Amino acid sequence: MKKIDSKSITGFPEFLPAEQIVFERVLNIIRKGYERYGFSPIETPSVERVGALTAKGGNEKEIYSLGRLAAKDGEDSSTGLALHFDLTIPLARYVVTHKNELTFPFRRYQIQRVWRGERPQSGRFREFYQCDIDVIGRGSLSLLTDAEMPSIIYKIFRDMEIGKFEIRINNRKVLAGFLKQFGLSDEQARGALGTIDDLEKIGVDKVSANLISKNGLNVDQVDSLVGFFEETKGQGTDEMLSTLKAKSYGEMFSQGVEELSSVVNNIRAFGVPDDYFKIDISLARGLEYYTGTVYETFLVDSQLSVCSGGRYDNLTEFFTEDKFPGVGISIGVTRLVNQLLKSGVLSARESTVAPVIVTTFEKSFMGEYLEIASEIRRAGINTETYMEEAKLGTQLKYASKKGFRIAIIAGGNEFDSGEVQIKDLGTGDAYTVKKNEVTSKIREILSDDLSLS
Amino acid sequence: MKKIDSKSITGFPEFLPAEQIVFERVLNIIRKGYERYGFSPIETPSVERVGALTAKGGNEKEIYSLGRLAAKDGEDSSTGLALHFDLTIPLARYVVTHKNELTFPFRRYQIQRVWRGERPQSGRFREFYQCDIDVIGRGSLSLLTDAEMPSIIYKIFRDMEIGKFEIRINNRKVLAGFLKQFGLSDEQARGALGTIDDLEKIGVDKVSANLISKNGLNVDQVDSLVGFFEETKGQGTDEMLSTLKAKSYGEMFSQGVEELSSVVNNIRAFGVPDDYFKIDISLARGLEYYTGTVYETFLVDSQLSVCSGGRYDNLTEFFTEDKFPGVGISIGVTRLVNQLLKSGVLSARESTVAPVIVTTFEKSFMGEYLEIASEIRRAGINTETYMEEAKLGTQLKYASKKGFRIAIIAGGNEFDSGEVQIKDLGTGDAYTVKKNEVTSKIREILSDDLSLS
Repeated sequence: MKKIDSKSITGFPEFLPAEQIVFERVLNIIRKGYERYGFSPIETPSVERVGALTAKGGNEKEIYSLGRLAAKDGEDSSTGLALHFDLTIPLARYVVTHKNELTFPFRRYQIQRVWRGERPQSGRFREFYQCDIDVIGRGSLSLLTDAEMPSIIYKIFRDMEIGKFEIRINNRKVLAGFLKQFGLSDEQARGALGTIDDLEKIGVDKVSANLISKNGLNVDQVDSLVGFFEETKGQGTDEMLSTLKAKSYGEMFSQGVEELSSVVNNIRAFGVPDDYFKIDISLARGLEYYTGTVYETFLVDSQLSVCSGGRYDNLTEFFTEDKFPGVGISIGVTRLVNQLLKSGVLSARESTVAPVIVTTFEKSFMGEYLEIASEIRRAGINTETYMEEAKLGTQLKYASKKGFRIAIIAGGNEFDSGEVQIKDLGTGDAYTVKKNEVTSKIREILSDDLSLS
Repeated sequence: MKKIDSKSITGFPEFLPAEQIVFERVLNIIRKGYERYGFSPIETPSVERVGALTAKGGNEKEIYSLGRLAAKDGEDSSTGLALHFDLTIPLARYVVTHKNELTFPFRRYQIQRVWRGERPQSGRFREFYQCDIDVIGRGSLSLLTDAEMPSIIYKIFRDMEIGKFEIRINNRKVLAGFLKQFGLSDEQARGALGTIDDLEKIGVDKVSANLISKNGLNVDQVDSLVGFFEETKGQGTDEMLSTLKAKSYGEMFSQGVEELSSVVNNIRAFGVPDDYFKIDISLARGLEYYTGTVYETFLVDSQLSVCSGGRYDNLTEFFTEDKFPGVGISIGVTRLVNQLLKSGVLSARESTVAPVIVTTFEKSFMGEYLEIASEIRRAGINTETYMEEAKLGTQLKYASKKGFRIAIIAGGNEFDSGEVQIKDLGTGDAYTVKKNEVTSKIREILSDDLSLS
C-alpha cells in the first residue's frame, strides 16, 4: 500500500511532549496573570464571516478560507467563512453580538490559535497561539486602562523569568499629528506610519527613501521628520516628554503628547519600574486598528518582539453605529516559547507530568500495584502505572527516559512483609518503607527536589 | 456605511463569560484527571494533509478544506490541507512523524477543537472541543490498558458531579465473529455492524429490516442475531459473560469474548464499581477505526452520549509498515457542557474570575487604590480595580452584576485614618478595617463563602 506523507507541515508547528509541557507552563503563567487582574475568559469560533475579516482591508493574502472538501465540480465549495488571523476582530464582533448580555467595561482574556497563510520565514508560523487581554467600554473608556495594560505585561514577563524585557510605548496621534502639518491625506499618512514602523529593521536611510518614493513626502519633510527623531534620540522618559510638550505641531500632536504623558505617569503609578518601559516615538504599529496608545514589548537579549497592542476606538464600526472603544495587548506565545526553547532560555526536560511511576514486574500482584497507585493519586500526586509485560530493567529505563522522579518497586517478597521500595531516580537512592508510609516518603523526596531547583 | 452581520454563525458555538468560566472548570477537571494517571499533553496542528484525513474513507462530506482567500480566478486556491475532524488520525500521524523521539508506550492527552461540516441538528456542532487520552504501543500494547481507560473516565465523571453515568463496553470481535459465521464479506460485516449500532435509536424491527435490505443478511440470519441479543438482554455482567463463553460462534467470536472477559475483570481491579459499567453486545461504534474493545459512556438521566472510544490496532497503517496499536477515549466536552447548562445541572453564575473589586470613587487617591489592589493580588487573590469615572453606586452595581464577592471602598476620610471598608456583596455586611488587615479579612470572608457552598 502506498503510504501517506507523515512529515510535519511547514509553518504549522507541533511540540514534542517535553516541549509541550514547557509551553503549557508558560500559558499558565499568562492565564493566571490575566486572571489576577480580573480578566475573564472567553473564546470565539475559529471562523468569522469573510466580510468581517476583510472589512479593514490589507489582509486578504494571509486569510485561509473554509471550503467543503466534498463539493462536486461546478458546485460552490465556499462557506463564506474563513479562519480568523487575530483575536481582535473576533472580539469586536463578539461584543456587538452580545452587547445586551455583557457588562461594560468588558474585561476579557482570550487564548486561542490564529492562522496566517503567509510565506513562512524563519520563526514565522501559519498557525499559532495568541494570548490577548482587552477592555472594551460602552461609549467611552478611561485612559487609565491604557496604563494598566503595561503593568500586567510587566508582571507576567517578570513571572516567566526569561530575562530583561522592555515595553516600548507611543501614541499614534504624536506621529500622525506631526505628519498632518505636511498636509498629507489620511491614506498617505497611514502609509507613512507603516514605513516609519520599519525604522529599526531597515535603518533611517532606507526609511527616508521609502517615505519619498512610496508615501509622497518631499525631501524637506523627510529632513524635518528625521530631525525630530534625531532630537529626541537617547532622551530619557521625562526629558523626552518635555521636548514633545515644547513642540507646536498642531492639535492632534498635542493631544497625543498629552495622552502619552498621562499614560506614562500612570504606568509608574501602576508599579512598572522606569527601566522596564520607554517611549519610542517611531513606534507606529498596526496600521489598521490603532487610534491612540500603542505598545510593543521586546526581549532585550534577542530583540524578539513578544507582545504588542494598543487602543482602537473604532473597531466595531463595521458592525454597529454604537461606540465601543477598546484597548488591548497580545502575547505571541508560540513564537516566544519556540525561540526560548531554541536559545536555551527555557529547556524541555521531562516528558511526563507525573513524578511517580509504579513498576509492575510481577503482574500477578497487579491488584496491589493498582492499590498503591490509587493511594498516591489520592494524595494529589500524578502517578503512572506501568502496564506492559516487561522486565524491571526495561520498566526503569522507560521511567528514566521519560523523566520520572520516583519509581515504586515491589514484588512477592516485599508484599509478604507489607513493604515497598521507593527509588529516587534523581539520586539513585532507594528506601524500603511500610505500605502506609509510601505517600509521606514520596512527599519528602519531592519537597527535597523542589528546594534544590 | 452598510454594517456587517454580527449574528452568531450556526453550528459554531460561543459562550458568554459566565458560561465560559463553567466550561473551563469542567476542562480543568478533565485535564487534571488525565494528568493524575500520567498522561502528558500534546497538541497537533488544526490541519492535516487531505490524504491523511480521507484515508479511511466515509468522512469526506464533513471535512472542511483550507483555501487561499486571495487566490485569483483560475489560480488554484487549494492548499492540500483540511481541518481535522477528530484527534485520533492526527495522533496516528504524530506518532509516525516523531516515532524516533517518543518513548513507548506513548501516553498522551490532547484537548483541542475539531471541525465537522455536517448539517447542524439540535445539539450538534460544527466546531467543538474533544478531550482525548490514548496509549500507543510500539509493536504491541497490553490489554490492561483497555481496562485502565474506563477507570480514568469513571474518576473524572465522578469528580464532575453531574449525576449518574454508565460506561458501556463491548469488543468488536464478538459481533464481527458472530456475523462471520454467516459467510459475509468483510465489507458486508462492517456495514452490518454500523446498522446494529443504531439498535437503541431506531429499534429492533427497523434494524432487522435494514440488515436485510442494506446489508444482505437473510431472514434466518437476522432471526439468529436478534435471538442472540434477546437471550443476553437484561443479563448481569457475569451472567452475560457465562452465556457468551458457552457459545461456539467461531474463533474470532471466542477471542472477542475472552478479551472482553479479561477487560471486565480488570476494570473491577482498577476500582470501577459494577453499577457504573455494563457489557452492551450491540455496541459496535466507529466503523472505521476500532478492532477490539469499544466504549461509550452515557449520562443516565438524559441518555446523552458524552464519551467514547476503543482499541485500534491498524490506524497508522496509512503512514507506515511499523505497527503502533492504540487504545483511547474521547470526551465531547462542548456538547456536554452545553447540555448541562441548558438542563440546569451546571449553572453559569458569576462572570468574573476575581472575587474582589477595588472601587475608586475618588480618583485623586488612585495611587492608594492601586496599592491596595496590589497587596491583595500579592496574597494570591484575583482582584480588579475599577478604572472608569463613575459614582460609587454605579461601581457597586457593576460589581454585583458581574458577581464579585467583595468590594473595597475607601475615600479621603478612610485614607486619613488609615482604614478601608470591606463590603461583603453576598451578605451585605460591611467591615471597617486597618489597611494592613485587608488581606486577612478578605481571606476570612472568602473562606466563609467556601464553607457555605
